[in-house]
Amino acid sequence: MRDILPDEVELRDAAVREIVAVYRAYGFRRIETPALESLRLLAGSDGGENEKLIFKVMKRGEELEAARRAGEDLADLGLRFDLTVPLARYYAENHARLPDPLKAIQIGPVWRAERPQKGRFRQFTQCDIDVLGLASPLVEIELILATTDALTRLGLSGLTVRINDRRLLELVARHCGFPEAAHAAFFIAFDKLDRLGAAGVLAELREGGHDADAVRRFEALLPGLSAAEVSLEGLRAALPGPAEAAWESLATIIATANAEIAAGCRVRFDPTLVRGMGYYTGPIFEIAAAGYPSSIAGGGRYDRMIGRLLGREVPASGFSIGFERLISILAERGGMPAREGAEAPQRRLALLVDDGGDVAAAVRAAKALRVEGDLVSLEVRRKNVKKQLDDLVTHGFWGYATLDDPARRPTPKALARPQEPR
Amino acid sequence: MRDILPDEVELRDAAVREIVAVYRAYGFRRIETPALESLRLLAGSDGGENEKLIFKVMKRGEELEAARRAGEDLADLGLRFDLTVPLARYYAENHARLPDPLKAIQIGPVWRAERPQKGRFRQFTQCDIDVLGLASPLVEIELILATTDALTRLGLSGLTVRINDRRLLELVARHCGFPEAAHAAFFIAFDKLDRLGAAGVLAELREGGHDADAVRRFEALLPGLSAAEVSLEGLRAALPGPAEAAWESLATIIATANAEIAAGCRVRFDPTLVRGMGYYTGPIFEIAAAGYPSSIAGGGRYDRMIGRLLGREVPASGFSIGFERLISILAERGGMPAREGAEAPQRRLALLVDDGGDVAAAVRAAKALRVEGDLVSLEVRRKNVKKQLDDLVTHGFWGYATLDDPARRPTPKALARPQEPR
Repeated sequence: MRDILPDEVELRDAAVREIVAVYRAYGFRRIETPALESLRLLAGSDGGENEKLIFKVMKRGEELEAARRAGEDLADLGLRFDLTVPLARYYAENHARLPDPLKAIQIGPVWRAERPQKGRFRQFTQCDIDVLGLASPLVEIELILATTDALTRLGLSGLTVRINDRRLLELVARHCGFPEAAHAAFFIAFDKLDRLGAAGVLAELREGGHDADAVRRFEALLPGLSAAEVSLEGLRAALPGPAEAAWESLATIIATANAEIAAGCRVRFDPTLVRGMGYYTGPIFEIAAAGYPSSIAGGGRYDRMIGRLLGREVPASGFSIGFERLISILAERGGMPAREGAEAPQRRLALLVDDGGDVAAAVRAAKALRVEGDLVSLEVRRKNVKKQLDDLVTHGFWGYATLDDPARRPTPKALARPQEPR
Repeated sequence: MRDILPDEVELRDAAVREIVAVYRAYGFRRIETPALESLRLLAGSDGGENEKLIFKVMKRGEELEAARRAGEDLADLGLRFDLTVPLARYYAENHARLPDPLKAIQIGPVWRAERPQKGRFRQFTQCDIDVLGLASPLVEIELILATTDALTRLGLSGLTVRINDRRLLELVARHCGFPEAAHAAFFIAFDKLDRLGAAGVLAELREGGHDADAVRRFEALLPGLSAAEVSLEGLRAALPGPAEAAWESLATIIATANAEIAAGCRVRFDPTLVRGMGYYTGPIFEIAAAGYPSSIAGGGRYDRMIGRLLGREVPASGFSIGFERLISILAERGGMPAREGAEAPQRRLALLVDDGGDVAAAVRAAKALRVEGDLVSLEVRRKNVKKQLDDLVTHGFWGYATLDDPARRPTPKALARPQEPR
């Protein structure tokens, strides 16, 4: 976990503002769920590895004592590890008061008790959109267009959306002859292709005690799956089996999204895309930007999660931006791109007043400057004014003013700075 | 803890936007701290009753096992119960990279394990500004003006800021003859004046085993303290003792803030104002709005908190808006006030397309409408269109469009509604 300094908070706020503006244009609306959910919900959510990383909150008061005496679980709540499981619970509890379909934006922190490592935090922000209540490929098309539009608006370019479908992964598993019970383990190994390469995945499958013939058939299929450009129709012919709906919807999503996607971006079929979570049921997708190998956003369809809570199935599909990753890219690039027609940023000024000076005049003068649209911090003039002005430059102030004539509005002066501010 | 529906999230976002705009004009900048802090920090923070309400997070993995074996505490982290204690820790750790003075805005959730009751939540949002590194009464004047400006901008009127000073409370305690060690208990009883009345407070003091003469002297003083209008100079004459700085700064704060405060608002000296937290050291203040008895914001100076963490004293003062209370008032009043010169809100439209219809044409048509600035949700036309349109009205849609001619941009129609939307 980490503290965030003012410059970064302002970058994060600006990014959220742009993303929300795009998502709202697509008909999405923000919702909020609490940080804590019941442990029962979190631990039974098919959330894969993340379930092992839950921060658990202890019971309180009488309940804690009773649990201690009975030797029962001492924790009853957990910090959410993603925004999808809480969304399913939110929908199950509130659906009668929500629009149908629900198009939800969620931006908020999630927590995972990972070992600390570079670039990974135990509290981090996710930025999700989800459509609940619609089974049409329209949903995936809109999720892809909205997310690529939002990232494009933030200055990212050359976005590639890789797309696959869980039903095709099932088809591959069946085609190779992996028994139903082995599919989950097969997908976990297949998911490591990026990291381990083909030989590594095949070794893991063999060592995992999978059927040798199935692994051999998978080995024969793998070059065709992992080619740079795989033809949907070609693979469809090579993999007969009952997956008409999956092939059709993938073809529609890819063709329609590619026709409307932002310039320089594209959607590409990638039959090796697996994604970690067990709850996906249909199309799955990830976005990477040109020049940044790891993905910035990922998502997919999870039609059965809400049904487990609500008792009737509700189709659902979502796309999640890895907000920390996005912000680190934006920070590397020197912030947000300038937008045509955007208002000029407000000037940040310090109004320096003498310690023990005319407080009323200082407050009046600051007010007069603020009326002009400036951001004005009233500060006490230090003995070492040179150092004080240098510090103002360091912290991004545009200029300063002093209270020379209490009867008049002070005239701000620009600070001398070693170079143009970015 | 509770879920927040789209209408309320939008109201909350709009309120945050206005508050942040005002606070930024006063030179404040947003910072962020993580939700979890070490239990040691939280439990040793002089946070009064709140320390008993900490949600504790269990240790993990090896550490948990070791703690179990050793019979040690099983928890190491806690969810923050306010934003002030984390701010002190943030400043102590990051001060070298922060502006001096630091003028911080913090808006975020805090957690308290209270028994559920109406209007109280176990997760709620606080909205704080703090100035760290300046001991001048300028700080309190700006805190008061910024907070009353922000609340006024949200449509609240007739704001009264009650102000007192912890050093005057000490003076009262000493004047009555309460020994130093009894001051904290005396303040806790005095703080209940609103709820218990004078007789109740005096009874609690007597039953608490306080010195009978001291309680009698307090009884004699109380009518003068709790009069509707107490003169600062009058009380100063009645309470001799070494508190020059406190009297002077209170006089400056009240006079200067009253000269510049928004129309219809005022700052009033209230020597019965105590506030619960033990960490206050100087001016303390609360705001109530006309027609709403309980306070909307509260704060004060806490010059010694950061010193305990950093090893050198850093003057600090802050003002915290009770955001949930504020939002419930705004919701009662039908939302945010219309602002002169504000842009017209965007129209929320549903574009209804037939299930199995021309997906590409639908996506193109939605895009064409969005270019005009509308918020467009692509939805599948249901069999019962009448019900579907009624639902759109319920959820705040302005209108809808259908895809009659795929070659042309659809023409949005306003939805018939029972009454004008608010």
